[in-house]
Amino acid sequence: MTTDSLDDFFRQCRQRCENQLDQILPDSSSAPLQQAMRYATLNGGKRIRPMLSYATAELLGYPAEHVDNIGNSIELIHAYSLVHDDLPAMDNDALRRGKPTCHIKYGEAQAILAGDALQALAFELIVKQHPSITATKQLEIAQGLGQASGLNGMAAGQSLDLLSEGKAVSLEELETIHRKKTGALLEASITLPAIACNADENTLKHLTSFAQNIGLCFQVRDDVLDIIGDTETIGKTQGADIYANKATYPALLGLEVAQNYAETLHQKAITALENIDQKTSRLCQIADFIVFRQS
Amino acid sequence: MTTDSLDDFFRQCRQRCENQLDQILPDSSSAPLQQAMRYATLNGGKRIRPMLSYATAELLGYPAEHVDNIGNSIELIHAYSLVHDDLPAMDNDALRRGKPTCHIKYGEAQAILAGDALQALAFELIVKQHPSITATKQLEIAQGLGQASGLNGMAAGQSLDLLSEGKAVSLEELETIHRKKTGALLEASITLPAIACNADENTLKHLTSFAQNIGLCFQVRDDVLDIIGDTETIGKTQGADIYANKATYPALLGLEVAQNYAETLHQKAITALENIDQKTSRLCQIADFIVFRQS
Repeated sequence: MTTDSLDDFFRQCRQRCENQLDQILPDSSSAPLQQAMRYATLNGGKRIRPMLSYATAELLGYPAEHVDNIGNSIELIHAYSLVHDDLPAMDNDALRRGKPTCHIKYGEAQAILAGDALQALAFELIVKQHPSITATKQLEIAQGLGQASGLNGMAAGQSLDLLSEGKAVSLEELETIHRKKTGALLEASITLPAIACNADENTLKHLTSFAQNIGLCFQVRDDVLDIIGDTETIGKTQGADIYANKATYPALLGLEVAQNYAETLHQKAITALENIDQKTSRLCQIADFIVFRQS
Repeated sequence: MTTDSLDDFFRQCRQRCENQLDQILPDSSSAPLQQAMRYATLNGGKRIRPMLSYATAELLGYPAEHVDNIGNSIELIHAYSLVHDDLPAMDNDALRRGKPTCHIKYGEAQAILAGDALQALAFELIVKQHPSITATKQLEIAQGLGQASGLNGMAAGQSLDLLSEGKAVSLEELETIHRKKTGALLEASITLPAIACNADENTLKHLTSFAQNIGLCFQVRDDVLDIIGDTETIGKTQGADIYANKATYPALLGLEVAQNYAETLHQKAITALENIDQKTSRLCQIADFIVFRQS
C-alpha cells in the first residue's frame, strides 16, 4: 500500500478491510442473528478507522498485515455502535447509508443481539494470537480497545449525548461528549496500531495528539454536514440532530464559527505531525479528507 | 477458601466477588450510565459463575487470586446479558430478583448502553496483565470468553430462544438453544480457570464434560423452578416463560420427565468428575446445589 493517490489508498484499504470482514463474519446463509451481523457491518461504510490503522502502520514501516486485526476489531465495534445508536430507544433512525437500519430490517431484539455479538467478535479478534506482536503487547492493545469502547469512551459518550437532549449544553460539555462518543475510537484507530508497530514515546505522543484533534474535527465536520449536506449525499435524514434537539457545534457556535473550529482542529492535527520524523504525508491527506469531506 | 461447608464456601465466594466488583465498577456518585452498571451488577446475584471458577482453582491447587479476573469478567458478561434480556424488545421483564429491572429504573437507552459498557469492561478486565498467568494463556482465555458470549454462545442462544417463541421446538433444538444461551458461559466459568490453572489434557476434558452437563442441568432446573417456584422465592413472575409461550423442558417433556432429566444430567456431571485425580468434592457439592436449588 504505497501508492501516492489518496483515492487509491482509500480504495485499497476499504477493499482489504471488507474482504477480511467478509471472512471474519459468520456465513450469510445461517440464522437471522448472523445475517443481521453481516447486514450491519458490510453496508458500504467508509472504513475510515481501518484506513487510519493502515496509514499508521505505513508511517511506522510495518506491513498492513501487522494491524489487520486491530483495524477490523475497531470497525466491528463501530458497526455495533451504529446498530445500537439507531434503535428506537436511542436515536430512533430508520435509515442508515440510504438503507433500512438493522432493527427495521431484522427487528429490535435481533438488532440488539447482533450489536452484542459484534462487540464480542471484536474482542475475540483482537486477542487472536498474532505471529509478530508479543502477547503482552496484544493484551495492552485489547485493553485499549475496551477503554475506548466502554464506560470511559464510546458508550459513555453516547449516554451523555442522549442525556443532553433538549438541555442547554456548554461547549466544554459538548466537547467531552464527542471526545468520548466518536473521538475515543478514532484515537484508538491510530494509537493501538502505533503500539503494535513499536512507535517510540515521542512518536506515540504526537500521533495521539494528531488522533485526538482529528477525532474531534471529524465530529465537528459531521455536525456541519448535518446542516449543509442533503439526504442523498450523507445517507441519513438531513438536520436529524437539530430535529432531535441535540447539542451540535453549529447550534452552539453558529455554522461559520463551527466550520472555522473544524479548520482549527485540522491545523492542530497537522502541527502535531510536524514533530514526527517519519513520512506523515498519508495522515495529512486523511486529515484533509476529514475536514473537507462532503458526506 | 478451604472450609468444608458449602454454605461457608458460597458466602466467601460471593463476598469476594462482590467486594471486587464494587471496586471494578465505576463510582456510584457518577453519571446515570455508571449508576446503571452498578445497579445491574450489584443486585444480589448468586454469583454461581465466579463460585465455579473459584472451585476449579481450588481443585487444581491454585489460590483464588489466580482466577479472580476470570470469574469477575464472566459475572460482568452475565450481568450485561440480564439487562439486555429484560428489555421490552426481548423478554420484557419488569422485575429481576424482586427489584425493578435496569430499563425500568434507568430507561431503555441507558440500560442498553449499561449492558454494552459492562461487556466492554468484562473484556478490559480479562486482558489485564496477570502476574502469574502467561500473556499467551491470557489471550487464549480472553478468546474463550468472546466465544462463550458471542455468535457461537450466549448471544446466539438468546437469539434462537426469541425466534422459537410460539413455535414447535424439538428437544434437540431446545438443547441447542440452552447449551448456547446459558451453557456456554457456565462452561467457560470452569474451563477458562482450568486453562489458567494449567489443567492437564485429561483433567480439562473431564472438567469440560462436567461443565457442559451441569450447565444444561442448571437450565432444566430453571425451567422446572419457573413452574413449581413462587414469585417471592425466585424473584421473577412465576410461569413467565409459559406466559411468553416459550419452549421449556417441562412444556416439552412434562414436569416429571423434566425433573428426571435434570437428575440424569446431574449424574453425568458427577460421573465425569470420577475420572479426575484431584479432590472433586467441592464441584460435587455445587452440582448438588444446582439440581436441588429452590430459586
